[in-house]
Amino acid sequence: MNKLLAETFGTFWLVLGGCGSAVLAAGFPDVGIGLLGVSLAFGLTVVTMAYAIGHISGCHLNPAVTIGLWVGGRFESKEVLPYIIAQVLGGIIAGGVLYVIASGQMGFDVVSSGFASNGYGEHSPGQYSLIAALVCEIVMTMMFLLVIMGATDSRAPQGFAPLAIGLCLTLIHLISIPVTNTSVNPARSTGVAVFVGDWAISQLWLFWIAPIIGAALGALAYKMIAGKEE
Amino acid sequence: MNKLLAETFGTFWLVLGGCGSAVLAAGFPDVGIGLLGVSLAFGLTVVTMAYAIGHISGCHLNPAVTIGLWVGGRFESKEVLPYIIAQVLGGIIAGGVLYVIASGQMGFDVVSSGFASNGYGEHSPGQYSLIAALVCEIVMTMMFLLVIMGATDSRAPQGFAPLAIGLCLTLIHLISIPVTNTSVNPARSTGVAVFVGDWAISQLWLFWIAPIIGAALGALAYKMIAGKEE
Amino acid sequence: MNKLLAETFGTFWLVLGGCGSAVLAAGFPDVGIGLLGVSLAFGLTVVTMAYAIGHISGCHLNPAVTIGLWVGGRFESKEVLPYIIAQVLGGIIAGGVLYVIASGQMGFDVVSSGFASNGYGEHSPGQYSLIAALVCEIVMTMMFLLVIMGATDSRAPQGFAPLAIGLCLTLIHLISIPVTNTSVNPARSTGVAVFVGDWAISQLWLFWIAPIIGAALGALAYKMIAGKEE
Amino acid sequence: MNKLLAETFGTFWLVLGGCGSAVLAAGFPDVGIGLLGVSLAFGLTVVTMAYAIGHISGCHLNPAVTIGLWVGGRFESKEVLPYIIAQVLGGIIAGGVLYVIASGQMGFDVVSSGFASNGYGEHSPGQYSLIAALVCEIVMTMMFLLVIMGATDSRAPQGFAPLAIGLCLTLIHLISIPVTNTSVNPARSTGVAVFVGDWAISQLWLFWIAPIIGAALGALAYKMIAGKEE
Repeated sequence: MNKLLAETFGTFWLVLGGCGSAVLAAGFPDVGIGLLGVSLAFGLTVVTMAYAIGHISGCHLNPAVTIGLWVGGRFESKEVLPYIIAQVLGGIIAGGVLYVIASGQMGFDVVSSGFASNGYGEHSPGQYSLIAALVCEIVMTMMFLLVIMGATDSRAPQGFAPLAIGLCLTLIHLISIPVTNTSVNPARSTGVAVFVGDWAISQLWLFWIAPIIGAALGALAYKMIAGKEE
Repeated sequence: MNKLLAETFGTFWLVLGGCGSAVLAAGFPDVGIGLLGVSLAFGLTVVTMAYAIGHISGCHLNPAVTIGLWVGGRFESKEVLPYIIAQVLGGIIAGGVLYVIASGQMGFDVVSSGFASNGYGEHSPGQYSLIAALVCEIVMTMMFLLVIMGATDSRAPQGFAPLAIGLCLTLIHLISIPVTNTSVNPARSTGVAVFVGDWAISQLWLFWIAPIIGAALGALAYKMIAGKEE
Repeated sequence: MNKLLAETFGTFWLVLGGCGSAVLAAGFPDVGIGLLGVSLAFGLTVVTMAYAIGHISGCHLNPAVTIGLWVGGRFESKEVLPYIIAQVLGGIIAGGVLYVIASGQMGFDVVSSGFASNGYGEHSPGQYSLIAALVCEIVMTMMFLLVIMGATDSRAPQGFAPLAIGLCLTLIHLISIPVTNTSVNPARSTGVAVFVGDWAISQLWLFWIAPIIGAALGALAYKMIAGKEE
Repeated sequence: MNKLLAETFGTFWLVLGGCGSAVLAAGFPDVGIGLLGVSLAFGLTVVTMAYAIGHISGCHLNPAVTIGLWVGGRFESKEVLPYIIAQVLGGIIAGGVLYVIASGQMGFDVVSSGFASNGYGEHSPGQYSLIAALVCEIVMTMMFLLVIMGATDSRAPQGFAPLAIGLCLTLIHLISIPVTNTSVNPARSTGVAVFVGDWAISQLWLFWIAPIIGAALGALAYKMIAGKEE
């Protein structure tokens, strides 16, 4: 139960911090934080939470990570579903709190703002195609899991995994925000999509399927590379 | 006494560095550091001071942090008030030094500049309402304390807490500068408000109340999540 | 074989992440990540991979690094060529994946985009001369190897080398993108040049020669400075 | 002798990296790194070198740091002057190499570019007065030394000092570039001033005096705060 609470709080922070920076601060006139600031914010939610609750739940904050670690033999089957539910719940609560804050600005409209939802085609920030979005999300999540598996390998330097993993999420955003607004995390996508509804919900399938496929591939890739596993 | 001196110097650095970057460098024509640079500056004041004086005073630099750690059972009652006084003093001295430097530019006017003061309503950078400001400051400080409690838990990796906590302050600024100019720290708010006077003083209550409520909630939340406390 | 796979995956990530951020996100209208974001992305590919696969292959990801470490007596002769082949292969695969993603945006043209290729003279981002490019690439790679040799010296703090080395690559990009688009890595240059062809191929020689010369000089410089080698 | 070589190479990197990023990349049209990128570059020169040569020379790279550590009882008298000479030499060589690279761009003029020199009054980036410049450089260097003394105290977490100190230099630049272009380091100021000549030389006195005064004050302040010194 402590683990599930930790995952809910942690995913709450990931979605509030990452999507919050995008909705509130990215385009602030003249001095906004831009995609670089949003990328940093997403990464720092993981850095901060991994040091804060890593010793409690492992700090997945992401259904694709949970499934990837399970595929990689690092996580027990019976905990997979509870973790995913706790994560999605945390993401949706974050969407709600962000909605309350963002609504405190006159003229805010959740649908026209996009509310940091993920999308492809005409809803991709740079109008990237479905295929590009699919390839991008799969490859990004694959490399994310490879880094997660490697940095938490017992042979890697101890204590640095939260930095490596969080900064990997920053890197992933630096590359791919223009393509899909970057998901690699179904709980993050769901947490804001439910408030936008409409297209955000109807495109949500891709941001569950692609990250999960990518995560499984990444976990298997690391096992292949790592040879004599820890 | 060494602890109090450390808190005064540390909070001096937090306010001079964070508010100084905002006042002097954020809007520098064409190549200014923007909200991203200001967010980084606030976080780095904590990173640098936590490595420099953490072993002396614990490096709170913030009345809300001091009260939150006391609520969380990590700090002694009798030291709470002296710490808060030392912090506010450091913040006001920083405001004074910043005033001297900023006044060295022709045409500087402390009131019209805003002097990095925190505000809501018409004094929020993005004109966010009182309610949005209140929710935002409470939630941000709550998560700040959760990260502080977690990263300094004996089960967390040793030596990394200053990075986790400082970068958490960066993250908080990346999200919430447009809402309230970001406080989460009554000493930081007070240190500059006393030079602006007027509205900055009359709105100051929120930046004492909300961070303290949030800090208490965050400390309790961590205790609930953490289960068998360190 | 595990080592070579690790180098291929790692260099794949370096080129996809670094060049990908440049091609997809650097100039995104209004809120693009700019040269600062690209610099950060290149560095983070190394930070993340060094924690993920450093314990497998040493995480060179760069023929100049491999040759420099060999010159510095830190790497065996018989592994040099296999490493370089694995790295170039990873770089080219990354170029291909990036091509697929980038092509998902209407109107994308690999040649006119430049595809993050390195160049001098009229193909330097700031139209820097051949001599400036040569000096810059040699000096940057020299200092890169000096930092790599030093940070992995047994007398340096343990576990921090991936941060020091990755952030050194960020620093090198912060300085030199305007001069050559920054290579210091023949595999990175080759990985994208083969898709641009034409001038990118005909200028590629410099981005093999200069980094290798610089790397050898840097390794020798460190040996001279270090005195009683670890 | 190894120590002096290390200081020369290290200061070379500080000036080439920091001033190089300013001269070459800060104002690059549209996507330049700005003052934020320059601040990061200066800090990363110290982070990278401190991990690379800290175990050889202590990695001062700055006459004010050397004098401050001597005042603080951490450095031997007989080594002060050789260190300072090695640092200034490294700074000037860096200025020369940067001159060669920058001259590879058509139309470059070292004087009109400013060449990242430090200045006050009409040569301050933001036209700050002599008094503001003096106060700013003294206070910034004071806090720099306080962080250096604290982060290398035996009671501080081991291995993190290079990060704390380098990121402190980033923070100092985030605050004070508009005021003096930020020195806090006489070798850095001298390394570029000799190429600009004229006003840069005639204002150079301030960037020797103020950092040294500040450094001495910072070292004494830490000794006062620290109580039972390590």
